[in-house]
Amino acid sequence: MYKGGYTGKVLRINLTDQSVKEEDLPFQMAKDFIGGAGFGIKYLFDEVPANTDALGPDNKLIFSPGPFSGTTVPCASRMAVTAKSPLTGAVGMGLSGGHFPVELKFAGYDVMIIEGQSPEPVYIFIKNGDVKFRSAKKLWGMKTTDTQQIIKNDLKDQNVRIACIGPAGENQIKIAAIINEWRAVGRKGLGAVMGSKNLKAIAVRGSDKIQIADKDKLKQAKKVFTTAMNDSEVLYPAFAKLGTGMVVDHTCHMGIFPTKNYTTTGEYDPIEKIGVAVQTDRTVTREHCYGCPVGCSQVKLAKTGDYAGTLSEGPEFETMYSFGGVTGVENIDAIIAADRLADEMGFDTMSSGVSIAFAMELYEKGILTKEDTGGIELNFGNDKAMMTILKQMSYREGLGGLLADGSKIAAQKIGKGSEKYAMHVKGLELPAYDVRGAKAHGLNYATSFTGADHCRGYAFQEVFGIPIPKEVDRFAAKGKGELTKWNQDIRTAVTDAPTMCGFIFDMAVIGIAAQNTADLMEAVTGIAYTTDDVLLVGERINNLARAFNVREGFTRADDTLPERLLTEPIPGGASKGHFISKEELKLMLDEYYTARGWNLETGSPSREKLTALNLAYAADVLNL
Amino acid sequence: MYKGGYTGKVLRINLTDQSVKEEDLPFQMAKDFIGGAGFGIKYLFDEVPANTDALGPDNKLIFSPGPFSGTTVPCASRMAVTAKSPLTGAVGMGLSGGHFPVELKFAGYDVMIIEGQSPEPVYIFIKNGDVKFRSAKKLWGMKTTDTQQIIKNDLKDQNVRIACIGPAGENQIKIAAIINEWRAVGRKGLGAVMGSKNLKAIAVRGSDKIQIADKDKLKQAKKVFTTAMNDSEVLYPAFAKLGTGMVVDHTCHMGIFPTKNYTTTGEYDPIEKIGVAVQTDRTVTREHCYGCPVGCSQVKLAKTGDYAGTLSEGPEFETMYSFGGVTGVENIDAIIAADRLADEMGFDTMSSGVSIAFAMELYEKGILTKEDTGGIELNFGNDKAMMTILKQMSYREGLGGLLADGSKIAAQKIGKGSEKYAMHVKGLELPAYDVRGAKAHGLNYATSFTGADHCRGYAFQEVFGIPIPKEVDRFAAKGKGELTKWNQDIRTAVTDAPTMCGFIFDMAVIGIAAQNTADLMEAVTGIAYTTDDVLLVGERINNLARAFNVREGFTRADDTLPERLLTEPIPGGASKGHFISKEELKLMLDEYYTARGWNLETGSPSREKLTALNLAYAADVLNL
Repeated sequence: MYKGGYTGKVLRINLTDQSVKEEDLPFQMAKDFIGGAGFGIKYLFDEVPANTDALGPDNKLIFSPGPFSGTTVPCASRMAVTAKSPLTGAVGMGLSGGHFPVELKFAGYDVMIIEGQSPEPVYIFIKNGDVKFRSAKKLWGMKTTDTQQIIKNDLKDQNVRIACIGPAGENQIKIAAIINEWRAVGRKGLGAVMGSKNLKAIAVRGSDKIQIADKDKLKQAKKVFTTAMNDSEVLYPAFAKLGTGMVVDHTCHMGIFPTKNYTTTGEYDPIEKIGVAVQTDRTVTREHCYGCPVGCSQVKLAKTGDYAGTLSEGPEFETMYSFGGVTGVENIDAIIAADRLADEMGFDTMSSGVSIAFAMELYEKGILTKEDTGGIELNFGNDKAMMTILKQMSYREGLGGLLADGSKIAAQKIGKGSEKYAMHVKGLELPAYDVRGAKAHGLNYATSFTGADHCRGYAFQEVFGIPIPKEVDRFAAKGKGELTKWNQDIRTAVTDAPTMCGFIFDMAVIGIAAQNTADLMEAVTGIAYTTDDVLLVGERINNLARAFNVREGFTRADDTLPERLLTEPIPGGASKGHFISKEELKLMLDEYYTARGWNLETGSPSREKLTALNLAYAADVLNL
Repeated sequence: MYKGGYTGKVLRINLTDQSVKEEDLPFQMAKDFIGGAGFGIKYLFDEVPANTDALGPDNKLIFSPGPFSGTTVPCASRMAVTAKSPLTGAVGMGLSGGHFPVELKFAGYDVMIIEGQSPEPVYIFIKNGDVKFRSAKKLWGMKTTDTQQIIKNDLKDQNVRIACIGPAGENQIKIAAIINEWRAVGRKGLGAVMGSKNLKAIAVRGSDKIQIADKDKLKQAKKVFTTAMNDSEVLYPAFAKLGTGMVVDHTCHMGIFPTKNYTTTGEYDPIEKIGVAVQTDRTVTREHCYGCPVGCSQVKLAKTGDYAGTLSEGPEFETMYSFGGVTGVENIDAIIAADRLADEMGFDTMSSGVSIAFAMELYEKGILTKEDTGGIELNFGNDKAMMTILKQMSYREGLGGLLADGSKIAAQKIGKGSEKYAMHVKGLELPAYDVRGAKAHGLNYATSFTGADHCRGYAFQEVFGIPIPKEVDRFAAKGKGELTKWNQDIRTAVTDAPTMCGFIFDMAVIGIAAQNTADLMEAVTGIAYTTDDVLLVGERINNLARAFNVREGFTRADDTLPERLLTEPIPGGASKGHFISKEELKLMLDEYYTARGWNLETGSPSREKLTALNLAYAADVLNL
């Protein structure tokens, strides 16, 4: 049925009765949704009905690499993992790289849907279409690196690729991650979904070759892609050598690197302590995802004190923020150690760090006392306290137990006005950009279908000053609605659906992205796409995801930002004095809904829009 | 030249100038020394002259698997590693299993001799006869598990086998180990020798097949061997399932499990807290050395408190003693975590634990004060203090710095009569048997050429009641000289030289060992051996090793035991009241030297004995 790219097969695994089913990948779905996030959202909307318990047997965990994964297209070894998020109640979707995604393709599958709930801990071993269930009772409680090694030994194959959870996922902590090798599907608590299914790990090994529809066309399209990569002044000269951590310095200079739970952004500047020079001093090697010529992943080794000798892949920029800036921790080695600990326990480094920073502010304000913390002096910058709380979170112990499900739930439990210090949207903790100085970025946090998520519609115009599709003023609100729609749609269409690396996109190939994606799609799959078709796929996915959230009860009221960002100006630095006023947010939302063709009052997609996107059935489901 | 077993090649690597040389394995050496420990001792005596600085460029690090390694003979994937010990100044030789030893054979070598000193940190990669040097500057400071993973990634081969050091070896701590996978050449500070050479790791990959001289004979000899294994009432029914940890219970019942630095042996019985039932409750899987059908290695997962989620291969019996009994630590999870920490930092678990126990007694006696410990309450049983000191030892920090080179050197620095609480022979800390209740075992500690080493002449007659060559009274001194000679010679001949697993020997095949070794040797190598020939190899190795020590200045006076064992009776339990009086030690030593044909006064081998063993050249070297 498919000329290339797709294996054409969907694997459905039910853990309740250990049944396994292979289905054909529907051609129309491939055409309309491309793959990755597209397939994830499609299955999620179609198969996980309203009000499903995210940690119950009816939630589904959908793994979907893209049509280029496993081909010679570089930077395509990624997958989306999708489920209803236990953290937000909205769409839970994240992407991860490494080698697992292509191995799943090599094993024969475009999509793997995990259903049901195993009565006892298990792990799954998939080898070229053969699915086996193995007891994971003895693996329960194990950290993620050890888990992967023990499974490799158990299977007598050091080359299986494994996605697994740590104690955090097992304990259904709502900010738990899925870890594959040292990469992660970090956010939205998908590790907890895996834990709720009693699924410790998925090990995959495959030897299929991915077919290509038109090798000559692929050669051409790849040339355009790699030329753009080679031409980038940032990608190889800087990013490959420094990794995402270099953005610490950049955002500090812009005055939008958030510090001490957003109370000192711009004013307190930690470049000297944790900037890229200090980070790079700890870099020991780089890791490459399958088929990636860049290798941005910087592996670092802590040098000093109690942390000496601790290695971590990372910390990435976002973790430099979450265990560094936002907590005020200035000890680079502590940040490296916290990153490793989070990976080993299976946490989202972002939500865990931001939740600890939230508690630090409460402690400094006296809302949490030493009695609440069990004697820990939880001031900003206390790295030892951060490590202790992080360990506690894994097992829901002490104050860590209160923070284990993220800052929104913690604030609800704590009360005393603490919610206004909880930096999240829809329950998902804010990423590392103080959007008071980058307003399209902020609007994206407010409207992204996964909560505060920089990956869904990254405003590179504001953050990197790239004038595509046009130059923008990062402090302005006007015009950001249309821009955010464009950012979300193109990002979804050219990175999340075909599962291409977002870094490459932001750093090098933005200018050619839509056309090149169309060319690559036609070359690999044989399905003809125009640039408009590609962007339409992005819009379609964003609309179906929004429809899922609307069905779950989300409305315009949920598309907002933490009170602090709407009322308190950035206190110092290059963005000093800026904030997103409530009027600006209203303006941007109006623009955004209008650009999207959504109802200005409810924020719901209209029947007309859904129908135009070939999603009329979703309008029926929503009773529009 | 060789019909089988041997590759016939010796690899000589000089780190000073990165030169590499291949030599033929001398046939006479193979015949006279078999392999493993035999080759190690032979090269050490011949090439490392008297008074060589153990941590200088002239010491050599000799890796030698055995003639059966890589064949179908089970339990033979072991190697000896030999150098002058920086801890004792005597022969430093230990064996390790796993997969590295056979991989070295597959890569083409019976012996690998590391010479010189690299100006900068390096690691070596050997692939089928090709030797490459790669910078390890960035790996310096890294823990052992991470080191192995990073090297595998660096070489893009998850199946290379790696021996490496951790921070302890890098810092030339004299109780540092060499770690391969999760196995170790633990004792005598060979990790420090590797560190002194700036050699972080050796990675090996090979695909040679090991030739067999006579396949039919091998089939027969293997059948005898495996039948003995199958017939054992201990090997598969208990040992495979429980591992060495089961000896905790056994030695507790015998009243010889040393507790609280030998002050409470027998009186304080930790079976309920750390006995095999508790250990097994933590067992998650078993690991097998290459070609081993038993798989005694029990991988355990800590369950509680700060240690929860920590995995370790082990702790083996000796570690249950060193981080458990002798320190009085009763927290099984702390012992698991300390075992992992020691593996990661690259420590001998035995010497490190016993050195900490020594400090604990000094603290309890007031010889070390809270000022000395930096505020740590270093009482027996304080698991957190043990972990802290162990971490400190890696970097020579705090009190850990004082203990980092073992209890003998620490006692010299501390003074104040502390030496009498330091439980070592020749600087090597005592293993886990209170030999006041097992006197041949004690005589072996006193006379073993590596210091207090249970592996060199294990008195299974006393410990397990096995009546081979005859029944003995473990409390008696008389007759133990001859027995110890026999134990040392047969152990060396049938396990250390052919690098067969000592556990299998002790548990299952003692009765047939000498004949079977002769049969296996003839079948694999084509060289004919009688039972006497085999035992003679053992005696030859023991004599040449002794000659090395004599040349270094060791005399009869060094063949002794810690004062406590010679003066204080075991305070409670099944061995209550027993000790080895100085008269008994004298009697046993006289017997032993007489049986060995050594000078009763100096303890030196005689010219006659050396000549009879085809070692006349050693007599010349010693000016006998």
